Order: sequence, then structure tokens, then C-alpha cells
Amino acid sequence: MRRAGIDTYRQPVLYLHRDCTVSRAEGFAALTRVSVKCAGQEVVAVLNIVTGDWLGKDEAALSDAAWQMLAPEPGAIAILAHAEPPRAASVLRAKVFGTRLNEAQFEAVLRDALAARLSDIELAAFVTVCAGDRLDLDESVALTRAMISVGDRIDWGSGPVLDKHCVGGLPGNRTTPIVVSIVAALGHRIPKTSSRAITSPAGTADVMATMTDVDLDIGALRNVVDREGGCMASGGRMRLSPADDILIQIERPLDLDGDGQMVASILSKKAAAGSTHVLIDIPVGATAKVRTMAAADAIARRLVFVGEAVGLRIGVHISDGRQPVGRGIGPALEAHDVLEVLRNSPQAPRDLRERALDVAGAVLELLPAIAPGSGRIQAEGALASGAAMRKFIAICMAQGGFREPGRARFVEPFVAPADGQLGCINNRQLARIAKLAGAPRNPTAGVVCTLREGDSIRRGMPLFLVHAGSKGELAYALDYARAHPDTLSLRESRS
Amino acid sequence: MRRAGIDTYRQPVLYLHRDCTVSRAEGFAALTRVSVKCAGQEVVAVLNIVTGDWLGKDEAALSDAAWQMLAPEPGAIAILAHAEPPRAASVLRAKVFGTRLNEAQFEAVLRDALAARLSDIELAAFVTVCAGDRLDLDESVALTRAMISVGDRIDWGSGPVLDKHCVGGLPGNRTTPIVVSIVAALGHRIPKTSSRAITSPAGTADVMATMTDVDLDIGALRNVVDREGGCMASGGRMRLSPADDILIQIERPLDLDGDGQMVASILSKKAAAGSTHVLIDIPVGATAKVRTMAAADAIARRLVFVGEAVGLRIGVHISDGRQPVGRGIGPALEAHDVLEVLRNSPQAPRDLRERALDVAGAVLELLPAIAPGSGRIQAEGALASGAAMRKFIAICMAQGGFREPGRARFVEPFVAPADGQLGCINNRQLARIAKLAGAPRNPTAGVVCTLREGDSIRRGMPLFLVHAGSKGELAYALDYARAHPDTLSLRESRS
Repeated sequence: MRRAGIDTYRQPVLYLHRDCTVSRAEGFAALTRVSVKCAGQEVVAVLNIVTGDWLGKDEAALSDAAWQMLAPEPGAIAILAHAEPPRAASVLRAKVFGTRLNEAQFEAVLRDALAARLSDIELAAFVTVCAGDRLDLDESVALTRAMISVGDRIDWGSGPVLDKHCVGGLPGNRTTPIVVSIVAALGHRIPKTSSRAITSPAGTADVMATMTDVDLDIGALRNVVDREGGCMASGGRMRLSPADDILIQIERPLDLDGDGQMVASILSKKAAAGSTHVLIDIPVGATAKVRTMAAADAIARRLVFVGEAVGLRIGVHISDGRQPVGRGIGPALEAHDVLEVLRNSPQAPRDLRERALDVAGAVLELLPAIAPGSGRIQAEGALASGAAMRKFIAICMAQGGFREPGRARFVEPFVAPADGQLGCINNRQLARIAKLAGAPRNPTAGVVCTLREGDSIRRGMPLFLVHAGSKGELAYALDYARAHPDTLSLRESRS
Repeated sequence: MRRAGIDTYRQPVLYLHRDCTVSRAEGFAALTRVSVKCAGQEVVAVLNIVTGDWLGKDEAALSDAAWQMLAPEPGAIAILAHAEPPRAASVLRAKVFGTRLNEAQFEAVLRDALAARLSDIELAAFVTVCAGDRLDLDESVALTRAMISVGDRIDWGSGPVLDKHCVGGLPGNRTTPIVVSIVAALGHRIPKTSSRAITSPAGTADVMATMTDVDLDIGALRNVVDREGGCMASGGRMRLSPADDILIQIERPLDLDGDGQMVASILSKKAAAGSTHVLIDIPVGATAKVRTMAAADAIARRLVFVGEAVGLRIGVHISDGRQPVGRGIGPALEAHDVLEVLRNSPQAPRDLRERALDVAGAVLELLPAIAPGSGRIQAEGALASGAAMRKFIAICMAQGGFREPGRARFVEPFVAPADGQLGCINNRQLARIAKLAGAPRNPTAGVVCTLREGDSIRRGMPLFLVHAGSKGELAYALDYARAHPDTLSLRESRS
């Protein structure tokens, strides 16, 4: 066995030379599913046939994903065989032919997916049959339960455990660290785990990683929460609803996530994390993930129904999804915004502060003891008094220490080409520019934009600032901005 | 650009080094869909990231499929960009969310598939939404028409053009060359194109390739048919319903071909080939593709309905799918059976002869002028008189020449381990043994079995003969046979 040094993303791939005696004798052809067994571990990989000379005739090479799963000693011998059809195959057929699936059937598919026994083709078929309206409410519940049961589950004992989730990201809308700090400062448990960015310039875990350690395992998570009541960690080292990541990787290229899958994804992670009360923030707007109130309503109803079935009390908070929030887009830049809010700085982005207080209030009001309207008041008090900031630092110390987020080496403005009034801000383009500047791979890179729709613009004034770690990335991001003037589009001023 | 020398089967794959400046700047990650443009040609490939040193940082390598599609000069420069989402993406979403697709929408998907703009994941999603009962009859018609329109179409002018197709293969059931010869000898047009084996030990094109040239293009096909009325060629060089092959490659691993897709696959190829009257032979049996009369009936009704909509007159012939037919399994071995029948040899396999006459008779009776029952009588006459054999040779000569099929170097019997009576013959295992012996890659390899259910077996007598081109393959096939005694299972004799 050897490492191919090829990243094929999720799917395990086995490389054999065309003249390898085993592949000829076994009748392996490209795309055959091959069981690779080595030292008691098994991976089912898709076969690619090599004619180049980088692979010997008696060598079997594995893609990065497969190598990590199997983790053989270099030079170890592996046994290859045609893979048995996975159990998932018959479940998939049943669903295609109209059967309503139960929890055990969903679980069989998810276990096969986690054991890497399913090819991309099989996963795509599964995701497709579950998409659209194809999962009724009972199936949503069954899928959610199955997703919880194939991973770890944290139990926090009796008493409420608060949580929040935002459906679809708005760039810069980094309320979580502020909300967690406020809620924990008020004495409630809120062990928040978040993910790193998948396709965006920053995820909450990336932002927190600029200030403290986030890669906690479940034991470390417990210690922090026992000490401080709250936590802002990455879920990466915990196996909470682990199948979710696999399904997301397939849903994303297909742009096919239906309500059923979204709900199962969100709630399975919350239930596995041991939460009891979850606030779901749904930003609604034309360029947000949820575009209409009707769509938000449908998701909300499904979340409440399925949530109840898996033991979660769900609250829904509708917010405005039309413009970015805060100023920074990128891990360190968003961290700076968060710190300014927590420090009650006069320069803190007002909209981020307001939204964080709204959400924190709504989280608190999940608890029966907290009257409607009083949640926000308590949140304001905890923030203004500095209690939230003190709690934030305490949580970071418990996670391993606090450090100020860094700054990028190169900063350059993108200036307005003409006078005018700022029209629409294209959130997606702005995020793209932040990524080209290097976020999140370079945590200090990204974009800072202080303008909002309707603002007056003068020729030559900065529309936004690009932060980058190298002149090349800076130039690349600015070139893209020049090529896409609709990122911050101008209309003529009314003067 | 360079060739990676990696066969990833259908899907085009682009290999870039992780430190390649373009992939970092563009934000390419593994599995990104990348547009590769070179000298006016474009391929959309899935990206795999390489960390090994076989690829330079300024090199882009392509998998075999992609290299053949793009066919760049070695060392040519390519322009890489994020691929635009294919039109198929929105059609797919529409179908998932319940829209009934029309011909134009199916065509958009098929054209994207043919232009290699769809990843395996997207194709799997498409195949899944069309599987099961998800295509109503109108959609079956729309899909079939779309499949015809994305490739070439042959027109034979006025007058009937006969054709046949067998749904699901029975090993050894090689009636086509006999049927074509009989029908052409009787003066009718029957320009039969067939495929090479995909997963079986032999396809009709492989069998014919042991005796003549089969890789004809449309011009050569016309010449042969103008001369002799019939033809037995491979469809490989013609673009008849070319999307069919792509869809099959995805349906097969999923085991998800529904009636809608099967019907579209069969009829689109027939219509594109210019046939007007098509006989569909459906072997029914527990280990055949179609397992019950009810299933056969459903397929038959859909075939007739869709066939009529695309200008085909369909006849259906139900046959017995429970046991293999003939003696040989493998290209040359089946060719020998075919020649024995055509030569009216007393040793010719009787069941193959009978079935070929049944099918030929049914093909003839597609024509209104031929009364029910008289088809088979005419067929017998043409066979017994030697007219069919003479026509067979004439067609072969027109295609490029006739040669006797070869014989394998090594032949060894697999003997019965005990006395008994032959119970069930497992067709799939027998086919597997033929493949391990080398078929169809080695055209003279395969298996010869003369026994049928109920035959008396004595310990030590040959159950079947394995033909192979090397001692290694012979041993491999025999080892497999020993490990799978249920291939030809014995029960105690009733004596």
C-alpha cells in the first residue's frame, strides 16, 4: 500500500496499475467498488486504473481520504476484493420505488456512508430521493433520529441547555460569540459548538480560532462548560451527527437541500450536542438562503414538529436578510467586530450589536421563567455592564487562553469610480472577494465594508478595504472587484 | 497540459498540484468543477488536488476520459476557470420539486451530459429522479425523443426496416446472427447494430467480431445493407442515442433502471438506427432480468405506447428465462454454436436453434403481409435450405471478410464431485466463471456447458469445460468454480 498523494475530497479512491495481476484476474475495471482490507480495517473505494509509471504493478495507492480512513503502515500488504453491495443499496431502491423509510432504514444508509461504503453516485442518489418534498414529516423525524444515533451524544444532566442556530449565513453576522457570552454571563448553560467555513469566508469556529483554542474534544468541552457555563468550540473533534457532513458535501454541488434534509441536519447536531432549547434565527431576504416569509414559515413549522419529536424545544426568530451585518468579512476581521461590541466601544458596529441583543433575548425567552420582552432587557444589562465581556474572556481562558486577533500585512481600499448613491450590496460577491483575498485559509484576510444601502458616495472614496497576506492575493481580489462593479452598485444621487 | 495516465472511467478529472498558484488564487478545492479550455475545445472536469511529486506546480493533468475529449497537443496551454452551472442543474431541481419534464428539458440534460459538463453526482441525481415510477408515460416519450435527437439518425427511405432486441441477457442465447441471416435471406431489410459486452462475458458485437469486422461507420453500414439487406455490426462508431451509454454507466452501479429508462434506452437506439418494426424478446424467469409475467406485461405495454409515439411498430415475444441457452458462453464459443445452427449440423444446440426460429418467425410476423404462424415456417425453410447460411457468409464478406472463430489454448473440465441429478443452474455464476477465464477480453475464452436441469450426473463426469488463454486464468476460473458449488447444484438422484 502507498499513499497516492491525491485529494479526491470525500470519496475514497484506490489506484491500481492496469497491468497489475490482481486487477486483471479479479476482473476489476475502473469504477469497480473494491474492498481494501489491511490490518483489521476496511475501506470500500472506487477504483481508478493507472497507466502512468508513478505506480508500480504490485502497488496499490489510496487517495487522501482513503489513506486517512485505513491508516496503513507504509508498505503494508492489503487484501483486495469486490465489495459486497452495501445494505444501503436495497434501502435506496425501496425509497425510489415509493416506500416510506423508517429510522432503521435511514440508519443503515448513514452507517454505510460513515464506513465509506458508498460511492459518490450512491450518496447522490440517496440525497436526491430525500430532496424536495420527498420526505414527509414522519420521515423527517426518522432521518433526524437516525442521524443522532450514528454518532456520539452528549448528556448534560437535568436542567435546560440553550443553543442557537442561524439558517443560511449573512456575511459578517457573527452574533454567536456575543450571544453565548451574554447568556452564560446570566447564569445559563450554552455549550455552543460551531463549524468551520465550508464555502464561506469564515465560520464561527474560524472566528473563535483567531482568539482561543477551539479544537476541543468532548471531555475538554465538559470542563469548560462546568467551569463557565458556556463554550465556543469547534465540533470538528466530536462525532456529533457525523453523517451530516457527508450528506452536505453531496447536497452542496447539487444545490438540492430540501427542507427535510436541512431540518434533519440542524436538529440532529443540536440533539446530539445535548441541547434542550434551541433558538433558530432565520434571516429572510432576496439574496439570503430563505427568500420569502412563506418559505421561512414552512421551515419553522417543520423545525418545531421534528424538534418536538426528538426532545427539543424550538423557538424561531425571523430577521432581516437583505444586507450584510457588521463591518468585517473574514475570521480576524469579524473577531475585531465582536470584541468591539463586547467591549462596548463607541465604534462598535451598531447593527451587529442590535442583532446580537435581539437573538440573545430570544434565546433567553426560550425559558419559561423569562417573560417575553424581558430577555432583551437582561441581555442589554449583561452587555453594558461588561459582564458579557468578562464571561467571554473567562470562556476563552478555560478553552486554552485568549489572544487578540491579528491584522493582515497588506490593506488597500477599493475606491468608488464615480459619485452616486449606494444601491444594492451583493453579499455573494463581497464574500467572494474576501475569499480571493485569502479568507479563511489566512485568518487575517478578508474585506471591511462600512457602507449600507442609500449611503452617499463620492468618487475616489473607499467602498471597502481589502485585507490580504500577500501582494498577489491583494491584487487578485482587487482585480475581481474591478471586474464586478455590481458588488456595491451605484445609482445616480438624487441631488 | 499533460496526460495523467489515470482512468477514472466516465468522469473527466483534472489534476492540479496543491501549490499551483492558479488553484490557490481561484479558490479551487478538490471536487470543484473546473472549465478547461484549450485550442477552442472545452471540457468541464472535477478537480482532484495532488500533493505527490508526479505533477509539477505549473502542470495540469487530465484523466483518460478528459484527455480524449479535449485532445490537446502535449505541452499545450489551457485556460482554467470555475465552470458555469450547467443548464441541467435547474432542470434537475425542477424535476426534484415535482415538475413534469418536457422534451426540451430532457434534451438540455442530455446535451450537458454528452458535453461532459455533468459530474457523476449530477448524473446520479438525474438518473435517480427518473427511476422507479417517476416518469409517467408522457415523460417516457419525451425522454425517448430527446435521446434520439441528441445523436445521429439513419434514414433508410420508404419500406419496412426490421429489428429485434432481447431484454436482459441469458448466457449463450445468441439468436441475433441466426435471425438476421434468416430474415435477410427472405428478402427483408434488417440492419442490426449491437453492442459489445458491458458486464457480461460476451455481447453480440463481440461474438460477430470473432468472425468478421464489426466496427463499421454509418457509411459502411449502408453499403452492407444496400448489398445484402442485413448487417451485424457494432454500434460503437456510430452516434446513435449516444447519451444512453452515459446513463447506463450510472444506472448500473445503482441497480436503479426503471421501466421508463429501459424503454427510452431500447427504443431511442432503434429509432435512431432507422428501424420501423421492432420485435422485443422478453425472457422471463427467476434469475433473468424480468422475473414475472406481470413485470413483462408492464414493460411490454410501455414499449408499445412509447414506440408508437416515436414511429415504431413494436411486437413483444415472451420466452423462457430460466436456463442458459446453447452451449458456449464467451465470444468464440457462442460463435461456434451459431455456425453449427446455420450449417444445420446434427450437433447444433437444439434449444438455440428452436429459439432462433421462434424469434425469426416473430420478427417476420411484424409485417402485415406475413400471416401469424407462417413466419416460423418461412424461417425454417430459409434455415434448412442453407439460404440463411449463405446470407450469413455474404453479409460477413460485405463487412470485410469471414473467418472461423478461434479456439482457446487451454481447455479443462470441471467435474462433478458426486452422483446426483442436476438441479438449478446459476446463470450468473456461470457467466462469472467465463469472465474469470478471460471472456470477452480474450475472445476464445469462456465456458461450455451441455447439461440442463434434471440431467443425471455421475461423479467424475464433466459438468462444464473452461476455455482459457493462459494456465493462470484457467486455474483462477476453476478455483472459483470449486469455491461455488451452487453454480451447477446437485441434488440426490431419485433412484
